[in-house]
Amino acid sequence: MSVTAAPGFVAAGGAIGIKPGGAPDVAVVATADGRPVPAAGVFTANLAAAAPVQVSREHLERTGRRASAVVLTSGNANAATGQPGAAAARQLCAAVAGVVGSAPEEVLVCQTGLIGVPFPAHVVPGVAAVVASRTGGVDAGAAAARAIMTTDTVPKEAVARPDGAGCTVGGMAKGAAMLAPDMATMLAVLTTDALVEPDALQRVLAGAVARTFNVLTVDGCTSTNDTVLLLAGGSAGPVETAALAGAVEEVCASLARQMADDAEGATKTARIAVHGAASEVEAHRAARKVAESLLVKTSLNGEDPYWGRVVSELGSAGVRFTLGRTTVRYGGIAVCAGGVAVPHDAPAVAAHMSGRYVEIDCELGIGDGRAAVLTTDLGYGYIDENRTTS
Amino acid sequence: MSVTAAPGFVAAGGAIGIKPGGAPDVAVVATADGRPVPAAGVFTANLAAAAPVQVSREHLERTGRRASAVVLTSGNANAATGQPGAAAARQLCAAVAGVVGSAPEEVLVCQTGLIGVPFPAHVVPGVAAVVASRTGGVDAGAAAARAIMTTDTVPKEAVARPDGAGCTVGGMAKGAAMLAPDMATMLAVLTTDALVEPDALQRVLAGAVARTFNVLTVDGCTSTNDTVLLLAGGSAGPVETAALAGAVEEVCASLARQMADDAEGATKTARIAVHGAASEVEAHRAARKVAESLLVKTSLNGEDPYWGRVVSELGSAGVRFTLGRTTVRYGGIAVCAGGVAVPHDAPAVAAHMSGRYVEIDCELGIGDGRAAVLTTDLGYGYIDENRTTS
Repeated sequence: MSVTAAPGFVAAGGAIGIKPGGAPDVAVVATADGRPVPAAGVFTANLAAAAPVQVSREHLERTGRRASAVVLTSGNANAATGQPGAAAARQLCAAVAGVVGSAPEEVLVCQTGLIGVPFPAHVVPGVAAVVASRTGGVDAGAAAARAIMTTDTVPKEAVARPDGAGCTVGGMAKGAAMLAPDMATMLAVLTTDALVEPDALQRVLAGAVARTFNVLTVDGCTSTNDTVLLLAGGSAGPVETAALAGAVEEVCASLARQMADDAEGATKTARIAVHGAASEVEAHRAARKVAESLLVKTSLNGEDPYWGRVVSELGSAGVRFTLGRTTVRYGGIAVCAGGVAVPHDAPAVAAHMSGRYVEIDCELGIGDGRAAVLTTDLGYGYIDENRTTS
Repeated sequence: MSVTAAPGFVAAGGAIGIKPGGAPDVAVVATADGRPVPAAGVFTANLAAAAPVQVSREHLERTGRRASAVVLTSGNANAATGQPGAAAARQLCAAVAGVVGSAPEEVLVCQTGLIGVPFPAHVVPGVAAVVASRTGGVDAGAAAARAIMTTDTVPKEAVARPDGAGCTVGGMAKGAAMLAPDMATMLAVLTTDALVEPDALQRVLAGAVARTFNVLTVDGCTSTNDTVLLLAGGSAGPVETAALAGAVEEVCASLARQMADDAEGATKTARIAVHGAASEVEAHRAARKVAESLLVKTSLNGEDPYWGRVVSELGSAGVRFTLGRTTVRYGGIAVCAGGVAVPHDAPAVAAHMSGRYVEIDCELGIGDGRAAVLTTDLGYGYIDENRTTS
């Protein structure tokens, strides 16, 4: 139970023939009564944004950020598909609207798959039967989460009901960069029963995304289709914004962590933390530079605590940095202090590196800025996953 | 014959015990008479710059950009080694100066190897015997080029004597990112017999580096030790600056290409060209984004002309971009035009992808900006080379 955890939402998953062999390739999340509710969206910053991203943005703008349903398809990104692609995305929304009884612009659309392959518009009418099967409850939410999987090995769902918050937030997600780069995309849909205005909802979602999905970096590639949506049904009545924000961030953080852990081809999840930077912005920039370094990522794959590469990345991250003030820790154990090697418990570091989770902490000794980024290792699995699309 | 091609320069290569087993690990290039001549240097922008980079910068500053010799060692980067590392780099310069009869600050130093490992200062006195063996001629230049190799499989040398230029430029180089990322470094030393003032020489070198070494990107990592030096002996007398600049760029371009071709673990060299960008700066930024994309690089490894990843990178490069105006060509054959797939000769594209050299051309249709970047593919070889330092 996830995207259907909050009262007032229904879901369904099914197959319409985008993927071969009848594999699930379409999901829908909708309000139980088909009426539009406040909706927030965070989309890729890629200027080659896919047709569904353009259509969903346009719909949110036209409705003043309200939606009655979200339709998600997998197997074709409908990106770099020109006007026919945009028309197909609109047809998907119209088909769903026809069943739930809302206006087409009240339906949002997310798609994931190969870029540049014309979308098979003839499958669109099949969506109606899937939408008609929508229902509440655990199984429906799980079916929707399974239908948006691509190379994910497990569906990703999360629910938060903080004590005293008075509302529920549930969500589902798929993919993230390395997870499924052929599929190019991370998608997530969240729902809540909180009663909240669209603008406040947008701020809540944007803040949560910045602190969760946006600090997960696998290969530094920004997809054409990335989309995170949040619909607020309102049946729980008004809630404290801070409580809602906390619950939304909790769900996003769980989904982001599930993505990193399920990264195909990855054998490690690593948290790169930077402390003592001149500012939070610089801390984030430095952490991301280390997290995206091919040399650091291959070292993680080889379980080699080669901190020289970490300081080299910190030194070229474009942030204030003084080697002589820098300390690097693996699993809490300092291997470099004052910019030079220090004696340390090598077997303990080796034991830490051999685990699934690796923690690298970098203290810059300059200011109070701190940030952390999640990443994965780089090994044969990433190559195998990505060298060809066939 | 390379670094000794220009009259007035001598060189030597030898072993002093930095590397195990007596492998060559030290090279020297010097003026034949030991007198200082105008010298230019371009160094890494990494704030964690190694001791030799700091010492060479300081020496050029103190002498007003003059040098009588360059000493290069391989097997230890002498980076993140604190004050003892800086002292060792100075001792190397002093040892060379003692033999060639110059002041210590007239000697420049380049080092390459593992970061963060204390430099074995006890080997420094051994340098004297190697310097004493310096001589002119082809063999001496070749010995020096071999002594700075790390995981390079072939020495890299180049000579240019443009018609009518009235001077000779020769050079040697090692490594580059992926080539030898354990070694962390690219080093190059060039010599010429042109008579030129230090400031003009610096401008010539900086321009050539910007258009050659700096448009070669393998993994986007900026080393702690990158150094390019150019010494001008002057025996050929004054020359046209443009002619000298052309010859220096020709040598640098050849060395950069040799580095890409010898990239360990790489099976492809690719040239990513961007035309029609809003400016040259934007063209360069876009080309570099495509060239450093893990998804594009793995596609090169798989010989897959997946242009969707190319437009996705262009769209997220932070440059002006309109998908509908974009054309992508592999080996001159358009696979995407107006932002969508176009019919093309697929067997011809496949044949191009199967070669060692791949050309990807991106036309943005916005302005006159153009730039090109050299890169390599990403496959098992890179992982094998970099997962551990042992």
